[in-house]
Amino acid sequence: MFISFEGIDGSGKSTQARRLAEDLGALGRDVTLTREPGGSPGAEEIRRLLVEGGSERWSPETELLLFTAARRDHIERTIRPAIARGATVITDRFADLTRVYQGAARADLRTIVDQLHQLMIAIEPDLTFVIDIDPEVSLRRGHARNTVEDRFEGMGLDFQIKLRAGFRALAEEAPNRVRLIDGAGSPDDVAARIRAALP
Amino acid sequence: MFISFEGIDGSGKSTQARRLAEDLGALGRDVTLTREPGGSPGAEEIRRLLVEGGSERWSPETELLLFTAARRDHIERTIRPAIARGATVITDRFADLTRVYQGAARADLRTIVDQLHQLMIAIEPDLTFVIDIDPEVSLRRGHARNTVEDRFEGMGLDFQIKLRAGFRALAEEAPNRVRLIDGAGSPDDVAARIRAALP
Repeated sequence: MFISFEGIDGSGKSTQARRLAEDLGALGRDVTLTREPGGSPGAEEIRRLLVEGGSERWSPETELLLFTAARRDHIERTIRPAIARGATVITDRFADLTRVYQGAARADLRTIVDQLHQLMIAIEPDLTFVIDIDPEVSLRRGHARNTVEDRFEGMGLDFQIKLRAGFRALAEEAPNRVRLIDGAGSPDDVAARIRAALP
Repeated sequence: MFISFEGIDGSGKSTQARRLAEDLGALGRDVTLTREPGGSPGAEEIRRLLVEGGSERWSPETELLLFTAARRDHIERTIRPAIARGATVITDRFADLTRVYQGAARADLRTIVDQLHQLMIAIEPDLTFVIDIDPEVSLRRGHARNTVEDRFEGMGLDFQIKLRAGFRALAEEAPNRVRLIDGAGSPDDVAARIRAALP
């Protein structure tokens, strides 16, 4: 089984991905917890190109190609081998952020995002949890981060609102794969909602 | 004007690209001489990911995405701005090597190469000089290199023969853009043939 966690920055998705991995591990399941961008040695090196330097370092198109290269390596070196040995793979972010981000930032890129995904990636998680939260709450939670997500935060509250709307739209487009999880309350509350939504 | 030089390793293409740049510069033309993979600060960083490490470091698909990311950056940051100010751009390699290499290494990837090029690159040189040479001669010339081309050399004489055939086929497919230049003889001989083929 291949599960992804998505959501705007500060939504608690990383915490919930880790918790689910721990919970399934405690049940004796073989679990691989991974993340994007990164998740394999090569993809982590590509990640460094993406997170270092200013926001003008790469054009949106070049950035998209680098994210896709990292994702391809992540799939080949981490995700597929783990699935092949029967593990459950849980990833903190996968392709959905790329879709939603580009839809919010530059709508004309969304078609290219989809075509590139179909050409070079093709696979989807079996199940995606979108932790849905009010962007004002998530921005307060996310203030201390120093990751690629800084770039998204840098785009401000309006952009976070667009991202949230994008994730919600995705959940409507792909209801069999994408589950919207209410991110309000304590991590325990949210974890209980995720457990209830597991098949 | 946008001119590329292609050819198997040791064909003398880099020498000829530099010579043409010098000759046009001596005539007072504004010339930008560049190369792939690389040719812009970002693309040179991606190049390092491609040339460092063993040949198994990236899958052919991931490598293709990294080459395309580097090419996109090279176009945006070096080629387009130079063309926009009226310069002649001369590049030592562009997209043709990717096409020919994949055709020779894994025929099933050639369609993906073409689709990815159309989606993310789209532009072609106005003129491409393929320096055509017997692979046995080129391998002797190329022995002292320590670049990405080592990977191609490492694939041996049979592979170089396939690459040459691929470049020749390309010249037949795109006769208006691609000029096959006999690479035999001295650099002066070859440079004279290139000058004679300039429009």
